[in-house]
Amino acid sequence: MDTHKIIESLPIFKGLSEKQHIMLAESAKTRTYSPGQLIIGDEDRTKTFYLVATGRVKLSKTSYDGREQTLYLFGPRELFGLCAVFSDTIFPANAVALEKSTLIIFPGEAVEALARQDPLILFNIIFVLSRQLKDSMHAIESLTLKGIPQRIASYLLTAAARNESGNHEMVTLPVTQRELAKLLGTTPETLSRILRQMTVDHLIRVEGKTVEITDRESLELFAGV
Amino acid sequence: MDTHKIIESLPIFKGLSEKQHIMLAESAKTRTYSPGQLIIGDEDRTKTFYLVATGRVKLSKTSYDGREQTLYLFGPRELFGLCAVFSDTIFPANAVALEKSTLIIFPGEAVEALARQDPLILFNIIFVLSRQLKDSMHAIESLTLKGIPQRIASYLLTAAARNESGNHEMVTLPVTQRELAKLLGTTPETLSRILRQMTVDHLIRVEGKTVEITDRESLELFAGV
Repeated sequence: MDTHKIIESLPIFKGLSEKQHIMLAESAKTRTYSPGQLIIGDEDRTKTFYLVATGRVKLSKTSYDGREQTLYLFGPRELFGLCAVFSDTIFPANAVALEKSTLIIFPGEAVEALARQDPLILFNIIFVLSRQLKDSMHAIESLTLKGIPQRIASYLLTAAARNESGNHEMVTLPVTQRELAKLLGTTPETLSRILRQMTVDHLIRVEGKTVEITDRESLELFAGV
Repeated sequence: MDTHKIIESLPIFKGLSEKQHIMLAESAKTRTYSPGQLIIGDEDRTKTFYLVATGRVKLSKTSYDGREQTLYLFGPRELFGLCAVFSDTIFPANAVALEKSTLIIFPGEAVEALARQDPLILFNIIFVLSRQLKDSMHAIESLTLKGIPQRIASYLLTAAARNESGNHEMVTLPVTQRELAKLLGTTPETLSRILRQMTVDHLIRVEGKTVEITDRESLELFAGV
């Protein structure tokens, strides 16, 4: 894996010099995790943050009776753990690889050293944290104020809007329906039933992990957009 | 109100020079809001962020059928709106004054100007955003994985731990029970009933807005700590 190449292509490191990209690449470690493997646990201490190079990672919390709520799903080119490194070093949840995943692990100190030369990277980190904070506010809204069918419709519309391929009527589910249910605060059975009902109502067409939005207007009405 | 004095006493502006404190004070505006007044609305655009000088502010979301979920409560010396200014300028919720509140309003540009001289303020902003992000992850956990009595017990323990007076067995509820219920995802009636039951069980003693923790061990057991 060419860590340097990945680093120089990332928005968070944009505007940095070639020399700074090399410095970051040299300070980073690469590690591969198998499906289901714990990367870092809830309340573990960390002085590093993580970039997903390949694969998929979930951040989740577990209740005392074993129920699980997923807080975030992270895929290629996404960062997590910044909020721990740059506050009290306590990691806020369990981070688990959902598939075979290779992560690039950066020491917080490397960022501090860079920032002394050029504060640009700090603005980039503020941008990433701001986005994650806003996403978590939307998650609270969705989990507390929206019904489950509405939540699923909103999820599909947001995922379609963010589709990097540019086809905003198409969603490739990033994880299994079982894992997606944990993000949406429901059971796999309910998720599956609602996707089937949406298909019968001609709102979407599902084929494996691909969901095509066939009636956007009705899906938006459904989502309460 | 001595804006300069407030600015120089805040952790987020610590380490800055006297000249920089003056520059911030001069760039800021002060505005007083009456109870119930909207400060900034969900999806409004903003290039400023807010510091509570006096009073109390809630950030909340409202559903299409009028239900409300409070995301955060902010009191004196707390900042909000950073995540909007430093991402896409879209404010993520409704900010409403819960009592007569005076806010100091900073333009994001003032921070950018300061950061060009000294990146310290950016580290401080990263710290604040990191804390808010971690708080919102705890909120998701609490709202989705904890029962209401457990949520209330956790809230009291966290509030007591953060009590600035140093008395960590005492909580002064920052808002009415009606508003607190909206933060904890319950109704005022349920909140009141559970506080009464906790009193009968000798876990707490309630007097007006003051809650004293009289049996910490049992309350912790109750909260699932």
